[in-house]
Amino acid sequence: MSYNHSPSITAETINQKVRIFTYEPCGEIVRHARRLEKEIYENPGSLPFQEIIYCNLGNPQALGQRPINFFREGVRGLREAVADGIAARDGFPSKPDNIFLTDGASSAINMMMQILIRSHEDGILCPLPEYPLYSASIILHGGTMVPYNLTEDSIWGLEIFEVKRCLEDARASGLTIRAMVVINPGNPTGQVLSITNQEEIVEFCRKEGLVILADEVYQENVYTENKRFNSFKKVARSLGYDHHDLSIVSFHSVSMGYYGECGRRGGYMEICGFGDDVIDEMYKLASLTICPNIAGQILISLVMDPPKLGDEAFEIFMVEKEETYSSLLKCAKALQKAFSGLEGVSCNKFEGAMYLFPRLRLPQAAIKAAQLEGVSPDVFYAHRLLDATGIAVVPGSGFHPVSGTSHIRCTILPGEETITAMVPSLQAFHEAFMDEFRG
Amino acid sequence: MSYNHSPSITAETINQKVRIFTYEPCGEIVRHARRLEKEIYENPGSLPFQEIIYCNLGNPQALGQRPINFFREGVRGLREAVADGIAARDGFPSKPDNIFLTDGASSAINMMMQILIRSHEDGILCPLPEYPLYSASIILHGGTMVPYNLTEDSIWGLEIFEVKRCLEDARASGLTIRAMVVINPGNPTGQVLSITNQEEIVEFCRKEGLVILADEVYQENVYTENKRFNSFKKVARSLGYDHHDLSIVSFHSVSMGYYGECGRRGGYMEICGFGDDVIDEMYKLASLTICPNIAGQILISLVMDPPKLGDEAFEIFMVEKEETYSSLLKCAKALQKAFSGLEGVSCNKFEGAMYLFPRLRLPQAAIKAAQLEGVSPDVFYAHRLLDATGIAVVPGSGFHPVSGTSHIRCTILPGEETITAMVPSLQAFHEAFMDEFRG
Repeated sequence: MSYNHSPSITAETINQKVRIFTYEPCGEIVRHARRLEKEIYENPGSLPFQEIIYCNLGNPQALGQRPINFFREGVRGLREAVADGIAARDGFPSKPDNIFLTDGASSAINMMMQILIRSHEDGILCPLPEYPLYSASIILHGGTMVPYNLTEDSIWGLEIFEVKRCLEDARASGLTIRAMVVINPGNPTGQVLSITNQEEIVEFCRKEGLVILADEVYQENVYTENKRFNSFKKVARSLGYDHHDLSIVSFHSVSMGYYGECGRRGGYMEICGFGDDVIDEMYKLASLTICPNIAGQILISLVMDPPKLGDEAFEIFMVEKEETYSSLLKCAKALQKAFSGLEGVSCNKFEGAMYLFPRLRLPQAAIKAAQLEGVSPDVFYAHRLLDATGIAVVPGSGFHPVSGTSHIRCTILPGEETITAMVPSLQAFHEAFMDEFRG
Repeated sequence: MSYNHSPSITAETINQKVRIFTYEPCGEIVRHARRLEKEIYENPGSLPFQEIIYCNLGNPQALGQRPINFFREGVRGLREAVADGIAARDGFPSKPDNIFLTDGASSAINMMMQILIRSHEDGILCPLPEYPLYSASIILHGGTMVPYNLTEDSIWGLEIFEVKRCLEDARASGLTIRAMVVINPGNPTGQVLSITNQEEIVEFCRKEGLVILADEVYQENVYTENKRFNSFKKVARSLGYDHHDLSIVSFHSVSMGYYGECGRRGGYMEICGFGDDVIDEMYKLASLTICPNIAGQILISLVMDPPKLGDEAFEIFMVEKEETYSSLLKCAKALQKAFSGLEGVSCNKFEGAMYLFPRLRLPQAAIKAAQLEGVSPDVFYAHRLLDATGIAVVPGSGFHPVSGTSHIRCTILPGEETITAMVPSLQAFHEAFMDEFRG
């Protein structure tokens, strides 16, 4: 029944450009120094010296101080904190050595595309509408995006038969499909996958030998009573599959959730089901940019290891978190109501993430006016909205939805007061826009 | 005499993979919102609204607060501070719009390679020995590295006829040479280029239509009395060349100098002599990873705009800076003396940066022992050194020097006390090593 360890991804089948370059400042001699350091720590006196003197890199030892051991232990400690947090969240073990700390999720996603894509004959399955980092990163690394459509009419549901059809078509056209991207909760579409749906995806990817690239950055942004976030790793483990059966990469970030610390650029990816040879290549690739910023590393470890009952910070933390959630929920409801009440606009049910993605059915005259300006109708509408009200939204075409449909993506984040003030302005604009073009 | 604006680099001649992807969350609508924001600031009351409501991105507005205008002004303010600092350093103007703030210099270097390299027929001139990020990044982005040798016997001097020879050979083999990398002060080689030499390089690159990729991260690490750091932009402007004549990119970072804040990941690149169409593509590429971390952005602006005479912080700042420099210089001298005194070792004159790059002439028996272990002699020596003393250096082969030569790269950073303690240990090891293999 089960497949071999990481059936499709080995050091032989990753992007060979990653393999052939060398980067010795963080290379074998440093790994060996780390091993010796561990030996000194575990068996003091076993080596002819008491410490490692790092003369390899130009790093913060610059100020006349020797490197503080705590700092180095600490860096591993941050990955341990992340792994412990994942284990507590999922109820399944997580290993620090499988955690890569990153400058936000975006750089981690770029790195995985760089590892997986060897040529334009390598395809990556991606949802449409999509967060456009995916198509951009696939194009940049020379691969082929293989889109599968989410179904707007069933709350942007993911139909596995549709994904299967796309996979088969792509294979028939000569592509090798390496991975499937799933964004859960969805961006820009705001849906939360059901566990049954996730199980189907796991079975599908296992059977077809695809890496699951699980964009789980909105895991703390679920607002619906009857669904909760489940990581793909948890779903896979619950089905009895371990790292021999399936490769899963989970991306997370400090930029979302109740923390929303975008400017800190903190994040991690947990990689499960990859061999040590692949991990070595990923480590080499990551070391090209030296390290993610330390403040972001610390912050992501705190996000995954928040204050617990009994901790001094616990009460204030919980109050702030609840206040943020309840405020976000109020904002989402107010905006959803406002969009749904506009003529020709239908708004998706908001289950998670931080966006509404209302669909616009614009009058033919507006569509023609857009054509005259050489832009798509959603871009035309978004520019008009901005010029009239100062409200900046993203035209939906940037997220590549089914062609012929028009959307805008609007965050729920501007705050209750601003949203209360902006809703009448949005309504007045829309009414005037429709009056102008209704014909 | 002079060439057209950016002769080789236009939106048509950059990597077309960069051009074809779209990334709308930071796209045209956001640029338009910024223009409107500027209009409100400059002409209050001129628009039908008083502020822009950013509903496009999920960013720190999350906490019930509206975006603070100062914050947005502030981000431009940081680039202004960097540009002002460059202008004060060089005596020639610098524009904030030509500054890209980055997570350290490494990500900026990767970004430029991604912009410049279209296929393996595009070559980039790089020094040997090199900082291996260059070869790695060129390989990763599918280009061809065209090495030119620095001359060890003349303090790792850069001979322009040697570069010209390499350029011509590469062109004869069908390559298109896009740019020339110059690392000044040098890494791992520690030399500081003379101004005459820099003038030759500027003339050469102007004449041949090459972008100068100027790695100037060690600009604050010059320790020799009779040389000082000159940016390539300053040298070009002093020769009377402006942005129409020559494209120059200068990389800088908070990780070096007297500050040495590696973990903060702050940096910038100043791009001169590129058209707006190319800058737009670079902006789109940069926005894929959202932004560099804010703490690093602030820090690089402070590095370029340090306390001045009359500022409260000035005196302490100057004392700390001088102490750091004098300590680094003592360390460099002590290590240089130690390496030079070892049998079969010659050490380069240390002018700048943070490394010594001593050359090892090892006994035949040691070279044979290395061969038996399947490693190069420098790797063999570095491993023996680490195992015997705990001193971690980087084997020189990682920097790709002239083949057949052996080096190690050793930082001058571990601090005076540590260096005083490690020198006898280094000497004892080396003596024993030579005794073992002298035969």
